[in-house]
Parts: sequence; structure tokens; C-alpha cells
Amino acid sequence: MDLSVLNNLSYGMYIITTKRENKKVGCFINTAMQITSKNPMIAISLNKENYTNEILKETRKCAISVLGENASQELISKFGYFSSREVNKFEDINYQNIEELPVVLEDTCSYIIGEVIRVIDVETHDIFLIRVQQTAKVLEEPPMTYRYYHEILKGKAPKKAPTYQEEKVDRKANRYQCSVCGYIYDDSKEEINFEDLPDDWTCPMCGVGKDKFVKLK
Amino acid sequence: MDLSVLNNLSYGMYIITTKRENKKVGCFINTAMQITSKNPMIAISLNKENYTNEILKETRKCAISVLGENASQELISKFGYFSSREVNKFEDINYQNIEELPVVLEDTCSYIIGEVIRVIDVETHDIFLIRVQQTAKVLEEPPMTYRYYHEILKGKAPKKAPTYQEEKVDRKANRYQCSVCGYIYDDSKEEINFEDLPDDWTCPMCGVGKDKFVKLK
Repeated sequence: MDLSVLNNLSYGMYIITTKRENKKVGCFINTAMQITSKNPMIAISLNKENYTNEILKETRKCAISVLGENASQELISKFGYFSSREVNKFEDINYQNIEELPVVLEDTCSYIIGEVIRVIDVETHDIFLIRVQQTAKVLEEPPMTYRYYHEILKGKAPKKAPTYQEEKVDRKANRYQCSVCGYIYDDSKEEINFEDLPDDWTCPMCGVGKDKFVKLK
Repeated sequence: MDLSVLNNLSYGMYIITTKRENKKVGCFINTAMQITSKNPMIAISLNKENYTNEILKETRKCAISVLGENASQELISKFGYFSSREVNKFEDINYQNIEELPVVLEDTCSYIIGEVIRVIDVETHDIFLIRVQQTAKVLEEPPMTYRYYHEILKGKAPKKAPTYQEEKVDRKANRYQCSVCGYIYDDSKEEINFEDLPDDWTCPMCGVGKDKFVKLK
């Protein structure tokens, strides 16, 4: 079965955030859709292994920031490839406490605040049904689509995303994959071979060092 | 609450089809998202009043055609603004019987065939969880996004869509709304007033006659 067909489904780029006591958590998601139009409700999908999933089940309240087309790779990487368990993702970014939630305003065209009214267990993921309680516009900018991120910005799906697919290895070229974010450095497409990159070179996607790269066979 | 913010969520353009005995049914949807990546499952949302919803609950099997960026307004209107109860939507369009399903191939970049494994009741709509069983590419064309349809092609959301919003009436201009598809003819933006249009004029969106238009107050 050709699973690449599933890449033809269209998505946006969102950051979902919540707060338990003083711990602010959040992660990147691409799956969000409106379910009802009267008294609107939206559905999002979150991997069960995600720390944000665990916390959201307790707090039952979240903010969803819709990223604009000029959103930075740093912001996407921070929320997409790291865990709020280990990293304070809100350091050095523009956010605001609204309704006791840390709402990301950086690179955000608009945000939605809502209450989780139901969690549906679907194998590796949960669907959260969220009743919309508050909305606001932030930047006058078109929303970024997931396709734009992949095709124009050459971004990769985080491993826990519903849309993650393992890359097929091309055995002819020397290629090195970042073990954190999945970014692939392909010697045949670069001016400098990976081995010759300086020691302080960092992953253009998530910022970790060369030592986190694994040579693909 | 500014509900227009919800328009910042990103969607695609899809036609979902199924067949009960010899009756082929289908409708337009914009809400489809992948939920799990292993043994993939997708979720779609369908209004309970939709005939396709009723039939799909029985057949438990469907095809989802992903529309390409050049999809015709006729195809979208046919599947978006009419009911399979009254109209044979498959007349004069390119479709094929695959796995006993009438799969729309017209203006389609790819299709997904799947089995409904769960139906989740969410107020006015149902979420269908669909296990992906078969996929295929059709046209080499980028998928159409819902935003592209609205902003470039100036399309409207069908009344039963999760994303439908009632238009606010501007009381200063004479405006006429199509009672079938919601299209608005605004005298102030056209060269000819609605009243002066020829009798055989038809709605540019869904093709019905002038008599189906209602003057907005």
C-alpha cells in the first residue's frame, strides 16, 4: 500500500499549550479540525506518549495557536522535536498568560482557547474534543499549511506525529540522519560532505550537534 | 467571540462515497485527518443530516477522493450542495467501481479506501474512524486546500459543513442569496442588478435558476 498518498490530506501548523500548577507544557500538532458549527467544537489528535497529552488529560483546558506562514523553524523545532518533560519551551518566546494558560503569540495568526469535553482512545493516539471558549486574531498573516512546511521549508514530521513515515534509505549516497528530529543530511545534495563539516555545526532543523547524527546504511 | 478565527484552521477538499445495494451515494467533505501512523487510521466528520452519513453507518466501507487544485466548481457543487437522496451525483462524472465502491476519479489526485471501525456521536455531527485498506494515486496535481477554494475560487461552505458560518447581511446593498448553495449575488459588486439578469441566468455556484434566490433584508 502506497502510504505516501496519505500526504495528500491537508493540515495546518499549530502549537497546543496548557499549564499544570506552574509547569507550562505544549507541543506542535498538525491535526486539528472543526467538528460542529453551532457552539463550535474542534478535534485534535495527540500521541499518547506525548507529555502534553498526559497533562492535558488532567488540566482539561488548552490554547491552540495557529502558526502563520512566516513561522520560524526554531519555534517549530522547539515545540515539535523536544519534550516539555526536559525543556522549558516558553523560554525566549513571545507568549502571554490568558485564562491561566500560556498562549503562544510568536508567529501566530490567531489562537483558540477551549475546554476538553471528551478524550477518545484511538490505539497509539487520543482524539481530544475541545469546546471553543475564546478566540482572537494576532498577526495578519496567512496560516502555514503542513504541505508548505514540508515542500517549501523542507521540514520533517516529528516521530510521534500521526503523519510520520519512515524514510526509505537510498543506498548509493552517504546520508546522515539526525536522531532527534529525523533531518537527513545528504552528501550528494550538499557542497560539503558531512564528515568535513566543522565540529560546531548543528542540525539546521532542531539545533543539536553532529554527534547526534547517525550514518544511514 | 470572533468565529472567523476558526477559518484559520487548514483543510483539504474531499469527496466521500459509498454504495448500498445499487444506490451510489457520496458528498463533499473538508474534514479528514490521519490519527495513527502505524496501520493508519483516518477520522472524518459528517453532519448527521447527511444522507451519506446514514448510508455509511450501514455499509461501513467508503472511498475518499482527494480533489486536486484544478477540480471543477461543477464537481464540488454537485457533491457539496445536493443530496444523493434526490440526485444521481455519479452521472456524467469519471468514477470507477473499485472494491464494490464508486470511487470518484474526476479531478482527483489520489484516493483512499477504508473500513469504518467506529462512529463517534458528537452532537450535530459524527466522527467516523476509518482504517485505511487501499490507496492509489490518480492525477499528478497538488491537492486543493479549502482556503484555496474559498479565497481563490470564492467558494462557499455548504450549510451542513462543520465550518459553515451564517453571512452577516449588509443592509445598505441589494443582495440575493441562493437558497440551495448560499451563494450571494451583491448588486453593488456586479455590473448588472439581480432584477435585470435574464430569466435563464443560473447560479454560478450550483446552477439553479433565479427563482431559487431570496432577497436579503
